[in-house]
Amino acid sequence: MGTKVMIPLCSDFTDKRDTICIFGTGDFGRSLGSKLLQSGYSVIYGSRNPGDSSLLPRAAEVLSHAEAAEKCSVIIVAVQREHYGFLRELEDVLQGKILVDVSNNLKINQYPDSNAEYLAQIVPTATVVKAFNTVSVWALQSGSLDASQQVFVCSDDNKAKQQIMDIVRAVGLTPLDKGSLVAAKDIEDYPLQLFPMWRLPIYTCAGLTVAVFLYCVISDIIYNAEKKNDVSHHLMITIPNRIFPVVSLMLLGLCYLPGVFAAIIQLYRGTKYSRFPNWLDRWMLCRKQLGLVALSYAFLHAIYTLVIPIRYSVRYRSDMGIINLIKLNKTRILEKPLLWRSDTYLALGILGFFFYIVLGITSLPSVSNSVNWREFRFVQSKLGYLTLVLCTGHAMVFGWNRFLFLERYRWYMPPVYMISLVIPCIVLILKLILIIPCIDNKITKIRQGWERPSRGKSETKSKTYSVAL
Amino acid sequence: MGTKVMIPLCSDFTDKRDTICIFGTGDFGRSLGSKLLQSGYSVIYGSRNPGDSSLLPRAAEVLSHAEAAEKCSVIIVAVQREHYGFLRELEDVLQGKILVDVSNNLKINQYPDSNAEYLAQIVPTATVVKAFNTVSVWALQSGSLDASQQVFVCSDDNKAKQQIMDIVRAVGLTPLDKGSLVAAKDIEDYPLQLFPMWRLPIYTCAGLTVAVFLYCVISDIIYNAEKKNDVSHHLMITIPNRIFPVVSLMLLGLCYLPGVFAAIIQLYRGTKYSRFPNWLDRWMLCRKQLGLVALSYAFLHAIYTLVIPIRYSVRYRSDMGIINLIKLNKTRILEKPLLWRSDTYLALGILGFFFYIVLGITSLPSVSNSVNWREFRFVQSKLGYLTLVLCTGHAMVFGWNRFLFLERYRWYMPPVYMISLVIPCIVLILKLILIIPCIDNKITKIRQGWERPSRGKSETKSKTYSVAL
Amino acid sequence: MGTKVMIPLCSDFTDKRDTICIFGTGDFGRSLGSKLLQSGYSVIYGSRNPGDSSLLPRAAEVLSHAEAAEKCSVIIVAVQREHYGFLRELEDVLQGKILVDVSNNLKINQYPDSNAEYLAQIVPTATVVKAFNTVSVWALQSGSLDASQQVFVCSDDNKAKQQIMDIVRAVGLTPLDKGSLVAAKDIEDYPLQLFPMWRLPIYTCAGLTVAVFLYCVISDIIYNAEKKNDVSHHLMITIPNRIFPVVSLMLLGLCYLPGVFAAIIQLYRGTKYSRFPNWLDRWMLCRKQLGLVALSYAFLHAIYTLVIPIRYSVRYRSDMGIINLIKLNKTRILEKPLLWRSDTYLALGILGFFFYIVLGITSLPSVSNSVNWREFRFVQSKLGYLTLVLCTGHAMVFGWNRFLFLERYRWYMPPVYMISLVIPCIVLILKLILIIPCIDNKITKIRQGWERPSRGKSETKSKTYSVAL
Repeated sequence: MGTKVMIPLCSDFTDKRDTICIFGTGDFGRSLGSKLLQSGYSVIYGSRNPGDSSLLPRAAEVLSHAEAAEKCSVIIVAVQREHYGFLRELEDVLQGKILVDVSNNLKINQYPDSNAEYLAQIVPTATVVKAFNTVSVWALQSGSLDASQQVFVCSDDNKAKQQIMDIVRAVGLTPLDKGSLVAAKDIEDYPLQLFPMWRLPIYTCAGLTVAVFLYCVISDIIYNAEKKNDVSHHLMITIPNRIFPVVSLMLLGLCYLPGVFAAIIQLYRGTKYSRFPNWLDRWMLCRKQLGLVALSYAFLHAIYTLVIPIRYSVRYRSDMGIINLIKLNKTRILEKPLLWRSDTYLALGILGFFFYIVLGITSLPSVSNSVNWREFRFVQSKLGYLTLVLCTGHAMVFGWNRFLFLERYRWYMPPVYMISLVIPCIVLILKLILIIPCIDNKITKIRQGWERPSRGKSETKSKTYSVAL
Repeated sequence: MGTKVMIPLCSDFTDKRDTICIFGTGDFGRSLGSKLLQSGYSVIYGSRNPGDSSLLPRAAEVLSHAEAAEKCSVIIVAVQREHYGFLRELEDVLQGKILVDVSNNLKINQYPDSNAEYLAQIVPTATVVKAFNTVSVWALQSGSLDASQQVFVCSDDNKAKQQIMDIVRAVGLTPLDKGSLVAAKDIEDYPLQLFPMWRLPIYTCAGLTVAVFLYCVISDIIYNAEKKNDVSHHLMITIPNRIFPVVSLMLLGLCYLPGVFAAIIQLYRGTKYSRFPNWLDRWMLCRKQLGLVALSYAFLHAIYTLVIPIRYSVRYRSDMGIINLIKLNKTRILEKPLLWRSDTYLALGILGFFFYIVLGITSLPSVSNSVNWREFRFVQSKLGYLTLVLCTGHAMVFGWNRFLFLERYRWYMPPVYMISLVIPCIVLILKLILIIPCIDNKITKIRQGWERPSRGKSETKSKTYSVAL
Repeated sequence: MGTKVMIPLCSDFTDKRDTICIFGTGDFGRSLGSKLLQSGYSVIYGSRNPGDSSLLPRAAEVLSHAEAAEKCSVIIVAVQREHYGFLRELEDVLQGKILVDVSNNLKINQYPDSNAEYLAQIVPTATVVKAFNTVSVWALQSGSLDASQQVFVCSDDNKAKQQIMDIVRAVGLTPLDKGSLVAAKDIEDYPLQLFPMWRLPIYTCAGLTVAVFLYCVISDIIYNAEKKNDVSHHLMITIPNRIFPVVSLMLLGLCYLPGVFAAIIQLYRGTKYSRFPNWLDRWMLCRKQLGLVALSYAFLHAIYTLVIPIRYSVRYRSDMGIINLIKLNKTRILEKPLLWRSDTYLALGILGFFFYIVLGITSLPSVSNSVNWREFRFVQSKLGYLTLVLCTGHAMVFGWNRFLFLERYRWYMPPVYMISLVIPCIVLILKLILIIPCIDNKITKIRQGWERPSRGKSETKSKTYSVAL
């Protein structure tokens, strides 16, 4: 409901809820138990030594495993996978009961099968439901519930799943049906991930940032230092504001490059039914994240640029320029081409930035979920390429004819904006070739399932093999 | 789960999933088939000529339609509606089976009934489930799954629906229960839409933009050209930065105008139970999109404005101003009123822009889903009108008393900011009248269901008729 | 489906849907009735005086309560709780029927039990489903459906719940299963809320804003007024741009202060199983909202700052500075430290603002739902503290050594930026102490469930008591 469902601690529930059994008196068991108590359930702990219950919530009963299981139909197994063994002996008592597996592993793929499936194998007479592993019970208890309140639930038995989903709701969380128990593997891997799709884009971005930084330091600070001109203060704003646009444009190019590669590969192979090479697959899967990293750099570039007139060094230089003009009794001449160029590259940059942001908003989960495929492809391909064209144009008009003047090539290093244009230009040229009608038609046909007739049967076999298995 | 569920291609599934039958060996059938194979299902294709199966995934069996259907309980009908006829002959084999209709049409309302309902009519003994039509299988296969992964599922049979939703989840997509088979029509129309609600706002915006653009070109560039003053470079930034705020303010006014009209109509008719005229209905339905277009123009206006001090022409003019002052040995006088005016209109603009953005964020699906009606109305009407007042004030203080000086009316054309004020001022004046307590009470009463006693029975009849049918 | 499901008013439904009975001919009953008629259902009204039906949709039948109930299996009770009494007499007719409670209360906690549960008590032989109370039927009818279209549904009977959820979908809304009938209380409270979690943060922010405003007015405007220097125009931009950053930094500090307090309390008590004091609980629950308010102030500060060079007063002062320099035949000296300081505090501010915005985006419901706990904690604690450090650094470098010059202390009042640094510095110092390895290990152990051995049994008892009940 957006806000937390607050069930008062001390109210007297007229409709007492069910009794739930918890195996295991560790931290998770204790925390979940007191949360369940607060939500109106009765809780019975199953413990090896029911006598020692000092840490457990007082309102809960503590019995032996068998006694506890007998009294309830739902048993939460808050025990680590290594200790599931003891459940084998309880098979008779557990017959027909619902076992809730809440366990997590320490790392992804620690075991070949999921803990929940392993539990179902150990106690085949019970119904196993996977749930509660994605929430932090500490946070649940301490009330810091700003993060996801979703609890993934899966089970082969729909009725048992519904029952557990009701408990999840009663505790104030949102259950999410993830289907049958096969999904347990993914559910158990989920809380262990740390932005897996962001890694490649962030590493790429970091690498490019360092490279461009070094390039700028050499061609600006060190170059000037050799001329006895200390511009080390460029480190704070001038150089970052050169790095951000350059890397952002490169990353935006890298966003659209794999799509172009994919089209070329499909054209070459004459089919869409063979898998792309692995590196291309990985690249294509992280395009959204690449784009968002590029957007954040573009955002930084925008603010760094807008801040320019406030900077002390800029104001100083501008003031001194006027004072010198007056001292020398000169006047400035309005350069018409510069007028156009200055306004044009600003306008292109602003429009590019605007569509960049529209693309970013469209990739918010709730927005992308509310558009259909046709709309999504329209935004991502049409608007995406428009953005790329505008930003490339922004960089080109910014550079203008400076690449003609060799004195700009410090130590034979071209200005950094020229380097940023390489990838986007490759993408745009390839794309221009691909949208030539005759080529475009072929790609469309291939993507609709057409295949270039193959030369031998054996070839087809090996090809389909690569798809099917 | 946010990230894609990657099921490895070559793992040996200990728990083999069900066998699924696919009728049709076209592109969709093939693609979905190999995806299902990857997810651990067995796939049997039903084909007219089972011998020719070169393009199908090798791991799949290919049989005749009847043989294939017999072996499975779930049959995916990947065939176009025109060819559903052959299923009539299979009625016996299909008895009790689940038929999944995955078809899409070429345009909205191509057929009077939905394909799924038509299928249910042809094979009345089977259970029909509509699913999978909203996903692009090509994208599914190539892994470019950034768009919506939602699969709308509907059926009259809940159990069959659950079964298909499990398959959807297994393939790595998110099923969304859309209820009974009547929903199939909407589900089939959904992927054909291309921003239907955005069309009217975008056309309105484009029309206004062109009109204001021409107005500005005439009153600025052509007017100056006649005075031998070439200001064509205004095209890049100066004129856009006049268009954006003017159109944005008009659109914001247009956002709130239909609500005011609706209240007046209800007041006049003395009831809320009669339908609004069609044009008003359409207008009211696209207010959110109108507001978002207005916000994007406001955003562009903000950046175009912030960029001003960086522009070469502005810096040139400012420098020349100082140089001329010194040459003429004059000094500038601080004009107090200008001081107030300049800061006031900037402050109003910034605050208006801020609330604009708050409104925009509130209209994100996930945010508007987490507020209730009371909160939503508070934000949209209270904050909305606050925004309108602030932005109108911004434009008024910007113009100040300029409308008094006739020399500003180039060729008798008033400055464009005055035109932008017309709609917002109408809205604000009407709104001011509507919130006069006695009128406000009446509207509230009408909206709570009160009706002005009608003069004759026949009138009531015709009125309720218009509501009910 | 993102866009509204438009079911044409005049189509002839081949598959006539069920007949639904509505008790109550008030506004809600009439509106919902005509909406149901539009969606293809037949509607029968149950009324005390079936003769007087002038206001009801003509297509609907109007019968007595008993007659109407007999004909349908689903009965919508659009009657206020106070009048539920008459249902007692209909107990026989209502046996086995589904009663849909759509009622809302006037204020939260008006009755000890929920209306739906009260209804279930009155007619124990019927199945009660809570639904439709969260939508505004007026909006539904008039088509202004931009707000949440979610209908919360709960019931103890799953089948009845499914049936009502189908009706909700047919009407074009999105049902959301909230579990068993116990949830009715929350569902009934939901539409009455007006940003409950935002109140404390907004009041805090308003209080701080007023305090800082007065402080600035005294130390700037009044102080200057006494020196015969009228700077009242500072009210528009200069003073707001002092208030926004100062309050924003304070609020950001207040965001992280309760977390630090919580850690200290846990360290002191040696356990995590005792509840935090109430004020700390409330504080922790509204941290997200505190952060968003702080972000909005930071956003305003950013724009107010970027607008500086456009301001008339700033341009005037800058121009006069140059003119004076020339008149006095002086020149400006480039101050290297100022160069570094100016660029550094701008860079720190921009980076801080950037991470601020990343934090804000992460707190959008759809984004925070798509990250797991590990990722959420990474963003909120790591990036959060990074933001705090950057913003604190921004303020410190901005102030630099000004705190050393007593002439800056107008009337012994320190510059306002110094006051803004108090809370963030306390937070950062405490945090620095808490992440000293030996202390950090202890907290981690406590949070994993470890408890410092208690001295007596009685103490444990009282402690667990406070948790459990």
